[in-house]
Amino acid sequence: MSGNTFGHLFRLTTWGESHGSAIGGVVDGTPPLIQLSEADIQPWLDKRRPGQSRFTTQRQELDKVRILSGVFEGKTTGTPISFAIENQDARSKDYYDNMDRFRPGHADYTYQVKYGIRDYRGGGRASARETATRVAGAAVARKVLDHLVKGGVRVRGALIQVGPHKIDRKKWDWAEIDRNPFFSPDAAAAQTWAEHLDQVRKAGSSCGAVIEVVASNVPAGLGQPVFDKLDGDIARAMMSITAVKGVEIGAGMAAAELSGETNADEMRMKDGKVAFLSNNAGGILGGISSGQDIVVRFAVKPTSSILTPRRTVTADGQDVEIVTKGRHDPCVGIRAVPVGEAMLALVLADHLLRQRAQCGLK
Amino acid sequence: MSGNTFGHLFRLTTWGESHGSAIGGVVDGTPPLIQLSEADIQPWLDKRRPGQSRFTTQRQELDKVRILSGVFEGKTTGTPISFAIENQDARSKDYYDNMDRFRPGHADYTYQVKYGIRDYRGGGRASARETATRVAGAAVARKVLDHLVKGGVRVRGALIQVGPHKIDRKKWDWAEIDRNPFFSPDAAAAQTWAEHLDQVRKAGSSCGAVIEVVASNVPAGLGQPVFDKLDGDIARAMMSITAVKGVEIGAGMAAAELSGETNADEMRMKDGKVAFLSNNAGGILGGISSGQDIVVRFAVKPTSSILTPRRTVTADGQDVEIVTKGRHDPCVGIRAVPVGEAMLALVLADHLLRQRAQCGLK
Amino acid sequence: MSGNTFGHLFRLTTWGESHGSAIGGVVDGTPPLIQLSEADIQPWLDKRRPGQSRFTTQRQELDKVRILSGVFEGKTTGTPISFAIENQDARSKDYYDNMDRFRPGHADYTYQVKYGIRDYRGGGRASARETATRVAGAAVARKVLDHLVKGGVRVRGALIQVGPHKIDRKKWDWAEIDRNPFFSPDAAAAQTWAEHLDQVRKAGSSCGAVIEVVASNVPAGLGQPVFDKLDGDIARAMMSITAVKGVEIGAGMAAAELSGETNADEMRMKDGKVAFLSNNAGGILGGISSGQDIVVRFAVKPTSSILTPRRTVTADGQDVEIVTKGRHDPCVGIRAVPVGEAMLALVLADHLLRQRAQCGLK
Amino acid sequence: MSGNTFGHLFRLTTWGESHGSAIGGVVDGTPPLIQLSEADIQPWLDKRRPGQSRFTTQRQELDKVRILSGVFEGKTTGTPISFAIENQDARSKDYYDNMDRFRPGHADYTYQVKYGIRDYRGGGRASARETATRVAGAAVARKVLDHLVKGGVRVRGALIQVGPHKIDRKKWDWAEIDRNPFFSPDAAAAQTWAEHLDQVRKAGSSCGAVIEVVASNVPAGLGQPVFDKLDGDIARAMMSITAVKGVEIGAGMAAAELSGETNADEMRMKDGKVAFLSNNAGGILGGISSGQDIVVRFAVKPTSSILTPRRTVTADGQDVEIVTKGRHDPCVGIRAVPVGEAMLALVLADHLLRQRAQCGLK
Repeated sequence: MSGNTFGHLFRLTTWGESHGSAIGGVVDGTPPLIQLSEADIQPWLDKRRPGQSRFTTQRQELDKVRILSGVFEGKTTGTPISFAIENQDARSKDYYDNMDRFRPGHADYTYQVKYGIRDYRGGGRASARETATRVAGAAVARKVLDHLVKGGVRVRGALIQVGPHKIDRKKWDWAEIDRNPFFSPDAAAAQTWAEHLDQVRKAGSSCGAVIEVVASNVPAGLGQPVFDKLDGDIARAMMSITAVKGVEIGAGMAAAELSGETNADEMRMKDGKVAFLSNNAGGILGGISSGQDIVVRFAVKPTSSILTPRRTVTADGQDVEIVTKGRHDPCVGIRAVPVGEAMLALVLADHLLRQRAQCGLK
Repeated sequence: MSGNTFGHLFRLTTWGESHGSAIGGVVDGTPPLIQLSEADIQPWLDKRRPGQSRFTTQRQELDKVRILSGVFEGKTTGTPISFAIENQDARSKDYYDNMDRFRPGHADYTYQVKYGIRDYRGGGRASARETATRVAGAAVARKVLDHLVKGGVRVRGALIQVGPHKIDRKKWDWAEIDRNPFFSPDAAAAQTWAEHLDQVRKAGSSCGAVIEVVASNVPAGLGQPVFDKLDGDIARAMMSITAVKGVEIGAGMAAAELSGETNADEMRMKDGKVAFLSNNAGGILGGISSGQDIVVRFAVKPTSSILTPRRTVTADGQDVEIVTKGRHDPCVGIRAVPVGEAMLALVLADHLLRQRAQCGLK
Repeated sequence: MSGNTFGHLFRLTTWGESHGSAIGGVVDGTPPLIQLSEADIQPWLDKRRPGQSRFTTQRQELDKVRILSGVFEGKTTGTPISFAIENQDARSKDYYDNMDRFRPGHADYTYQVKYGIRDYRGGGRASARETATRVAGAAVARKVLDHLVKGGVRVRGALIQVGPHKIDRKKWDWAEIDRNPFFSPDAAAAQTWAEHLDQVRKAGSSCGAVIEVVASNVPAGLGQPVFDKLDGDIARAMMSITAVKGVEIGAGMAAAELSGETNADEMRMKDGKVAFLSNNAGGILGGISSGQDIVVRFAVKPTSSILTPRRTVTADGQDVEIVTKGRHDPCVGIRAVPVGEAMLALVLADHLLRQRAQCGLK
Repeated sequence: MSGNTFGHLFRLTTWGESHGSAIGGVVDGTPPLIQLSEADIQPWLDKRRPGQSRFTTQRQELDKVRILSGVFEGKTTGTPISFAIENQDARSKDYYDNMDRFRPGHADYTYQVKYGIRDYRGGGRASARETATRVAGAAVARKVLDHLVKGGVRVRGALIQVGPHKIDRKKWDWAEIDRNPFFSPDAAAAQTWAEHLDQVRKAGSSCGAVIEVVASNVPAGLGQPVFDKLDGDIARAMMSITAVKGVEIGAGMAAAELSGETNADEMRMKDGKVAFLSNNAGGILGGISSGQDIVVRFAVKPTSSILTPRRTVTADGQDVEIVTKGRHDPCVGIRAVPVGEAMLALVLADHLLRQRAQCGLK
């Protein structure tokens, strides 16, 4: 209700500012008796962690997570799981120059108008730093999914476009994801992107990206029509990530150009089970999962913090120019990959519990 | 929580099946002392009503709304406003043939798997018929927006693409919207679409569409970071409309291809107020409205009910073919225009009350 | 969130004013495939219906319920169940005299201050008439409890005190409940109350009462610490009934006077199961059901509508006297018995689904 | 939804076990620009802190609170306020002996049945230790009330009964509260209680208590009928405190014995304002505050941890006896006074924001 809690039954409440002493969250609603330790969360944070290549911000954060409650003798107890991550490498002085200037494309102006105050250091609450707590919470969500769904649910993401450069979908190789600093499933694209980003940075500019997240082995039946549809909640989840401007499920915006015959995924029995012959639906029909892969894409706008001077105004109404120094990702879309995965896992865990509540799980 | 309620403070709960005796809803949280009668709701329903041109379903529904509570001597009392709309022209026998066959692209299969039962008549709860109750609820939302915001909030939508045919944005004319049966802001496009749809129908096919909805004079400050961002809630709202597969805010998916300099909307003072020099943000920064127009687009897939035979399976696991007869919109995107407007109005009314709760309204 | 919805997973949203055209509600979250028809709801409404003895209001309402959605071929489909009950015997002119005078003990003054408007006819939304919709919604809750809990859950209530006259608990006989117009488990007490109420009415007065509601065969494990404890939600449910001023679980207020040894219910194994040797806890420990009977009591204040003149003020600030004519229950506590049962059933159904969501049901 | 969040618009989410490394909470929805520091919270924690007299547990906890987010340059920013309190004096070995025995009157059995696991050290999540986080969160609620209500809202509580010994209400003196270790408004009663508790402790027993909490200068109009009534939410809040078994508003259970004339508080104009001539309603009519003092009472059962041997069973189904050693409050009711105050402040802050959302604040 007050903005910082995600989910209804599996709930993540997060807190913290970019340059505060720490960030963290509370996970409530976790089923009991699930094996859980910090070692289940840390790898996901490590994946999102900044400073791992020259293509992301050089801010050095270890992002070590600490669990403070809700786990006893290595297992969840059903009580709230509180976790915290210290901020270690905040450099607030980078922000003092611009504290009175609204950075274009950032939330400076809207936070100021809404609240009449804002923590301008590192973007405060509006910083993408808060997405670390989403990743931590989602690590618990993944455990829940694996605990309740036979065979587990796999949620993984890939970068599929950087600026104008798209991957070649025919070359898609999930194994490639971990071999390049872009989470690209196409090695050649990663090469192109590296060159593109080097140019972009040299030009004092930045660029956008598109991310695709896929969930496999999702049970059919998740989603609550008519307003809490699975795709609706996914769209909201992705759009809540910093800098996202568009979300697509399955065929997405391109569905507008398909014919009725092409779009509607046909069905056939296969080994005694229903098999779909295509997946334009992205695994969701009528707001309910069909058992097919759930396929989500979202676009991230270019980083608003750039070295090229831009026109803006000050809090007291002066026309000025602004240059945003500091340590910034030239393409925030890269690190949005693990965050997109996290959000999808959070949505699925919540809907799994909702489905269990109303209809039971088979 | 259980799927059929939208909003937190301004709440709409809807009910009803396509071929039940009636559909309706309950609006809760309305501020008191707002002038309200059925005459405030009916025009919006009339706009969405089927059977008004050869391009929409020929089902004849008057969609007469009746207010059952919450209004006293012409004014809202702050208590729940219940309304109902009778179903008058349901033709259930059209559905008996296919009651055991899952119509591809429809929610038949997922409802059956989720609930183990479904009202197959006219699509039951999954029918787009339920969107009438959204439009009715949103009529109250519009009254709230106009009551609380000086100058009122204007929410209007347009069809901007049918199949592969897009409007020419340079010819955009809001006045044109009411002059053609497509809510097209471009008269020439409407002509093209008419021809296209006649072909599509003749071919026993259907086509998709893209809708754009714009809200003007929205106060800056609406939206609750980090999870209940205004754009997140809008995305969820639009994606919850039947057949929607993609949602964009401002630059949308194309933001991926913009440079940092182009994307971040610059600011200048103008007449003592902050003015943005472009609107790639679509009126939302950091999940909070900036005071610029809120610009939303969404894509609707082609109608899944088509006369071309498609492969599918039966509830008892047989491979069969299916042809979907009955009275269907060849392009559900047309009537999605007033529904998209409705959803945006609902989101804004809810966030306006949330903003009033936490920060007060100026 | 906006006051007229009860429950989180099993949700009842109600609407309607005492003298409006109808009252009703929407039940959302019901598990599918439960047999349900109007015949499952009507008997509970009949139990609460006014005008059945000289000890309740003479307003004649048949309280015929109509189901408008959510049921298909006699079974719940998992979609919202809308129901409505017509108001047939409203006599609004009884209220015109006092429309500007705040009736002491009623909600006239607070509704007026809160909303700046109120439907004064029959108390409007504040009338106990709305409790009929609780009873209707609870009839569905009972079906859910019986569907999901082996052996079913029995929720029943009794009047145990009228004015100063208490029942003799040693004579408690559930079978007696249906044999007298007071839901008294003690025939002798019923006799005393009849005489007492005749006097009270003759004196132009009214009197209060205490109700006890008991739920049997409730599974252990229901309740969500620390804020959504089962007893907390029960207390809220009971206190939300018109005119209730106190709620007790188990030993209740008297627990203050017990010693630690007496209060804490001891346990022994019996037939391989845990058996408690007493029930001061009222079936709830740490906010979670223990499997013992849940025992709740609540006190209802005397009807505020009395013929004895009382001092009050008018909307425009005049000191006046008031006499409340019309058809009123001399003791609203009597008809509060089925309403108390209803609220307990609603709480239990909601918590049963919540327990199923987080921990599964055995 | 998942039990550990309280409130809708002003929300407190708490976490932590009695013997974990820390306990804490997150406050969300706080209006911005309110002066807030740890010094605003600490005094309330100090009031509740154990080990301050021989009548409470000897566990030594400093209960030093640390704010981790949501405050910038001494003011709230509208973002979530996270706080933590370290556990310093846990003595877990006291609990090893009884880890397999269910302590009668405690939540051991129900937690075990519900979750299949429990942190038995110090009662885990079920320990009254968690109430410290309620007090901390309520300190922020008090700031909100004082910020938004002219003249501020005063919420204060008193112990009015210990075992069978009640205060003399005629001697009520709020100034006395801080002069004795019982929060007694009657000095003589405090003396009686001291003697009584010394006996009780010597007898290896414990005793219950009754607390009264009063809120003054509460604006009229708070509360959301029909289910989210102010008194309903207060009842739930109080019942959610460890060991509470009964809650009363105004006349409470005794309302059953009042006549209609006595019960309904009459009104007169006084200095241009409405004045009530009595307060049997406890400041709430129809679930909405009337502007009178809100008066709440609740009963706390005797501490279940006693030295007298009691019969119980083990997790593996053996009949055994149990003696609960350790450091325990002989009367948990004493320290329930600041907790009751806290809960009332939390409810009022939430309803104040809800009222502001729907109706605005004058």
